[in-house]
Amino acid sequence: MIVTDSEKTISTLCSSWRAEGLGVGLVPTMGALHQGHLSLVKTAVACVDRVVVSIFVNPTQFAAGEDLDRYPRTLEQDCEQVEKAGASAVFTPAPVTVYPKGFSSEVRVSGITEGLCGVYRPGHFNGVTTVCSVLFGIVRPEVAVFGMKDAQQLAVVRRMVDDLRMGVEIVAAPIVRESDGVAMSSRNRYLSATERKQAALIHKGLKKAASLCRRGENSCAVLRQAFLQTVSSGSELRVQYAETVDPDTLLSVEAVEKTVLLAVAVFAGKTRLIDNVLIKPEV
Amino acid sequence: MIVTDSEKTISTLCSSWRAEGLGVGLVPTMGALHQGHLSLVKTAVACVDRVVVSIFVNPTQFAAGEDLDRYPRTLEQDCEQVEKAGASAVFTPAPVTVYPKGFSSEVRVSGITEGLCGVYRPGHFNGVTTVCSVLFGIVRPEVAVFGMKDAQQLAVVRRMVDDLRMGVEIVAAPIVRESDGVAMSSRNRYLSATERKQAALIHKGLKKAASLCRRGENSCAVLRQAFLQTVSSGSELRVQYAETVDPDTLLSVEAVEKTVLLAVAVFAGKTRLIDNVLIKPEV
Repeated sequence: MIVTDSEKTISTLCSSWRAEGLGVGLVPTMGALHQGHLSLVKTAVACVDRVVVSIFVNPTQFAAGEDLDRYPRTLEQDCEQVEKAGASAVFTPAPVTVYPKGFSSEVRVSGITEGLCGVYRPGHFNGVTTVCSVLFGIVRPEVAVFGMKDAQQLAVVRRMVDDLRMGVEIVAAPIVRESDGVAMSSRNRYLSATERKQAALIHKGLKKAASLCRRGENSCAVLRQAFLQTVSSGSELRVQYAETVDPDTLLSVEAVEKTVLLAVAVFAGKTRLIDNVLIKPEV
Repeated sequence: MIVTDSEKTISTLCSSWRAEGLGVGLVPTMGALHQGHLSLVKTAVACVDRVVVSIFVNPTQFAAGEDLDRYPRTLEQDCEQVEKAGASAVFTPAPVTVYPKGFSSEVRVSGITEGLCGVYRPGHFNGVTTVCSVLFGIVRPEVAVFGMKDAQQLAVVRRMVDDLRMGVEIVAAPIVRESDGVAMSSRNRYLSATERKQAALIHKGLKKAASLCRRGENSCAVLRQAFLQTVSSGSELRVQYAETVDPDTLLSVEAVEKTVLLAVAVFAGKTRLIDNVLIKPEV
């Protein structure tokens, strides 16, 4: 497996693969990889011939006061793990490589970026769409894999790729969870023992809402309430939002008539965790 | 030559050309074609195997109160002319094709878009960069040709393509002029006889500035003054701006030490005309 911080090296490598008729896939990450990321890599490996994993803690997607400086960096372990998962290359560019002197372009998606996390993380999705555009430009993947934990990111990237005809197929991979249901996240390592334990209530609340729906409840207000009630028993937890939306448009939904995304952001102490569940109507 | 308003048709056609190993070029236009546009097509034909001309009066690049509604449309003649010039296809999408329902992405370039025309045409360059991104995505050209008359547009598109690694080579084609020096423009047809006659003073003023520099004058203030003085003799002319800038960064320049762009916008009656000249230092 090739590990490089050079744009030239990775773009030449990907061009040569394409010239050989090999399909190239990209898994964009910020490193500090866990089983969730590795499942993205495995999904990509199943789709295409050569998988590039980018590891880049993108400064432009952190809002002021967020955890850019303390975001975990574990490059050596990351490389070992993605090699085992079947990646062919890791691209670890420096910020000045991604954003050279004079860089002044931005890709913005409006509407779909404005609710959910967009309310609380100003500029975050502009950072995500811009860095994805750059990475797609460098790697020119036919497939890129994103995790469903970041449901809004997934919807936003899909919107961008469709709008700007980027010609990249966006594949969604399911959320991977710890044994107690906590969604895998690089930020879980910030949690104290108590916070980590209580974090399991988030998935418990999501499951509770889904199970109510399976038993015939289709009022989104009731489902949200079930989530909030479950999480309220965690003394270290504070819900930032819990919303029911259409999974593609992210527009608010008040009754489960087709599949609804219940998306939540919850602080466990000072650590912000996001999670979600797709709730399908009873048929 | 194929003429189509279908995205599917043009993208499939371009894919099939690429699959045959043929190089594809794009000349994006708003129609109402003149010799200036045809020189772009000929430049493209000299660079690549197959040239697509897009004809699309892009609503998002017109600011409020501009001439979107009365912008000239001459599709039939346009097609005849570009076929003669060697184009292989004309893509004439409807607005809803370029911007389907739900479209919500935008490509923005900051800095370089803020001076010159950017001051007077709010949102114009966002419209240009977004539509170019879409057209590049549909056609996937290896080369796209732009005219040097729209010097700021050229610099902005180059910045975008570099920043977002679009992998399109941007080729600049020189300004084509009428016999009296007036730069070819689709908007020249708006001019009254008097305005048309006086419009020649614009190029005369630009030439005057360039010739002063050849004779050793390197103060941009003096060169601008020479331009303004020449144009001031036209009773129907009103200068909107006349600025000396670096041709790549569009930053203001006060002395001709390397090549300087003298870029101007002048109203002839109600019609806004732009023009420019590259002024090189005496060596």
